Amino acid sequence: MIKKIINPPEKKWEKINTRPNYSSHVVENTIIEIFESVRKSGDKALTKYAEKYEGVKLKKIIVKQEEIDNSKNFISKSLKDSIKIAKKNIEKFHISQKSKSDHIIIEKGVECWQEKRPIEKVGLYIPGGSAPLFSTILMLAIPAKIAGCDEIIICTPPNPKGEIPPVILYTCYLCGISKIYKVGGAQAIAAMTFGTESIPGVYKIFGPGNQYVTSAKQYATKFKISIDLPAGPSELLIYADETAIPKYVASDFLSQTEHGPDSQVILVTTNEKIINPIIKEIKRQISYLNKKEFIRKSIQNSKIIYFDLRERAVKYINDYAPEHYIICSKEEEYFIQNLKNAGSVFIGNYSCESIGDYASGTNHTLPTNGYAKQYSGVNLDSFLKQISFQKITAEGIRKIGPAVEIMSIAEGLDAHKNSITIRLKDLKNE
Amino acid sequence: MIKKIINPPEKKWEKINTRPNYSSHVVENTIIEIFESVRKSGDKALTKYAEKYEGVKLKKIIVKQEEIDNSKNFISKSLKDSIKIAKKNIEKFHISQKSKSDHIIIEKGVECWQEKRPIEKVGLYIPGGSAPLFSTILMLAIPAKIAGCDEIIICTPPNPKGEIPPVILYTCYLCGISKIYKVGGAQAIAAMTFGTESIPGVYKIFGPGNQYVTSAKQYATKFKISIDLPAGPSELLIYADETAIPKYVASDFLSQTEHGPDSQVILVTTNEKIINPIIKEIKRQISYLNKKEFIRKSIQNSKIIYFDLRERAVKYINDYAPEHYIICSKEEEYFIQNLKNAGSVFIGNYSCESIGDYASGTNHTLPTNGYAKQYSGVNLDSFLKQISFQKITAEGIRKIGPAVEIMSIAEGLDAHKNSITIRLKDLKNE
Repeated sequence: MIKKIINPPEKKWEKINTRPNYSSHVVENTIIEIFESVRKSGDKALTKYAEKYEGVKLKKIIVKQEEIDNSKNFISKSLKDSIKIAKKNIEKFHISQKSKSDHIIIEKGVECWQEKRPIEKVGLYIPGGSAPLFSTILMLAIPAKIAGCDEIIICTPPNPKGEIPPVILYTCYLCGISKIYKVGGAQAIAAMTFGTESIPGVYKIFGPGNQYVTSAKQYATKFKISIDLPAGPSELLIYADETAIPKYVASDFLSQTEHGPDSQVILVTTNEKIINPIIKEIKRQISYLNKKEFIRKSIQNSKIIYFDLRERAVKYINDYAPEHYIICSKEEEYFIQNLKNAGSVFIGNYSCESIGDYASGTNHTLPTNGYAKQYSGVNLDSFLKQISFQKITAEGIRKIGPAVEIMSIAEGLDAHKNSITIRLKDLKNE
Repeated sequence: MIKKIINPPEKKWEKINTRPNYSSHVVENTIIEIFESVRKSGDKALTKYAEKYEGVKLKKIIVKQEEIDNSKNFISKSLKDSIKIAKKNIEKFHISQKSKSDHIIIEKGVECWQEKRPIEKVGLYIPGGSAPLFSTILMLAIPAKIAGCDEIIICTPPNPKGEIPPVILYTCYLCGISKIYKVGGAQAIAAMTFGTESIPGVYKIFGPGNQYVTSAKQYATKFKISIDLPAGPSELLIYADETAIPKYVASDFLSQTEHGPDSQVILVTTNEKIINPIIKEIKRQISYLNKKEFIRKSIQNSKIIYFDLRERAVKYINDYAPEHYIICSKEEEYFIQNLKNAGSVFIGNYSCESIGDYASGTNHTLPTNGYAKQYSGVNLDSFLKQISFQKITAEGIRKIGPAVEIMSIAEGLDAHKNSITIRLKDLKNE
């Protein structure tokens, strides 16, 4: 049932590592049309699309404060308590990411430093669909708040009654977000890009979504918007040796496959003996899980790969660059130290992916599709930018000014030289 | 000669802040064609383009070690010494950007941390043209080396004799870069994207260039490449009050305008009296500078803006979000503290932009065109990515596992719940 591959040679890795096709045949023309329409007609376009796509006649695009305040009445205490635990942990981890940078005296009279300042306006997209993804609000709104972004807005599609699920509103309330807009799809991304009468435009857009949303985010970058990450289907790589517990590995494997039909799991091992027990457990556990259709389809994308040497296993794993990476091994230090590319790493038999998806504190917005080779997952820095500063005194320019004069002439820039010369001359005459 | 604007109302700022048109009518088809050709034919395509664009028949694409070794013989001692000073300062500042992140105990048994790891393969593009931009090598190669990138390559166009300027080779040598390739333009970006027989493919591409190069970098992002920054013409905003020295301000103004015809300077002041002395100085200094044509054209893009209140000046400056920002003011602390958006800040009468362009230690690869609202300039982090880690023990999952079970069910993900339940069950039976 799951494809097994034994010691694949390096030249085959590229093919093995090709992710399930995140069909890019989304009609780009639709997105261009939606962007044009939202740019020109603003809110009017948004209500038009709400009728077309969500089947709802919206009176107001913004969620009323009353709806937000009432949301807590529709959620069980146990869910509220659970969300609070998650919030506390995510907060703790993201606060720990604050950094201070020192003022550096490069030479006497030449002082340089960097400061992080928040991105003023950020937009978070929260998809609708079969279940309300309140955990994603935690993962995006908490670091945005810690960073100190002035304006944090959320767009999320309403149901056909024009409502947003209470658990979404409650989580927004907990995170201190009050600007919530009933807009979904590419039109939400267009609205945050251009701004409308109701919705303020932002500088950076975060959040997952279907192919329309992710293509729209990509398209938004043409209009001076930046985005969190290029998107792709979720994926997990598990390295397991004989210290791994087959039923746990199977449960992690399956939790990844229920995300959607294009999810993927790669199981890498240097111990052939654990393969069959894991497969047996996967079969057993599927029987009692709900999302069988997604699971069966994702399993077709998944692979079990055996390497006889750990050196080759680790090289392969770095080449795959997994979004989620579980290490269950007696040699975990070896696998951690030699890791070059991954989004988030889960170490040991009790570090299942789901715990990081919700509540350990780490972020679950992570680079997929091999992008872990050059992208970080969302973290506090995603909501900040660095500004560099320098303060040079007369003594400083006396010291390094002459070198700048020589270099600027060598680059053919005599006005650059002039800006130094004119100052050095004054200093000589002092 | 320079446009003066008095107290512009906020609704006019968007128009005032529109940057000189970086003509995006670059034939995208040319770039697509070049990418296709390089992907299919590799080195053969590169030698074909070298003949077409640089008028040179290349025998070898890689620069020979001998050429690199000999380069030092063609450069004056004073230039070599100057480059070494710049290198030392840039190194010192970028080394200071190293950070360590602590392991955080979120709860007993739940340990999370982040680690920065280098992007393995990076490509630096150094433009050719009228002057050899060796300073850009310093700005990109030094942080790449400090980050620990495994593979650092440089592409730069050869002259019609098939040679690279010695000062480029010497600076590469100083920075420890030995893989230098004689390729320019969009074809260089395509080569670093796909790799050829001679040139290894990379994960992230850095560096400035003409419109073909910057459009090619943008296009490369379709093939899982990331880039340093979206590009635009260089720009400077100066805030000057009565403590500014007009001839210094004029020299900084002019040093920015010599970059190209599409450069821009905005002078903001709350003191009308300094405007005329600055204009007078600009006129005087132009007379003895070389790049008069660029300067005259950039001056047409430039503006002097007077505000009667510093609060409005600072709000305007944040809206402009300058790449380079010089503050010459008795109230510098006010302008620093209220700054939200800028690439690099130069404080006081001796902190001229040229000193940061070359030698103070800060990076000169910075966000233009208002991108300082959401992008950092190049710094050490540009060559690293963050990986998050978590290690959860039996005690940890006992503590937060139940919350994860509840939340995953609320999100309709029962296989996620199962991965927790299966472990908690075992722990209960222990």
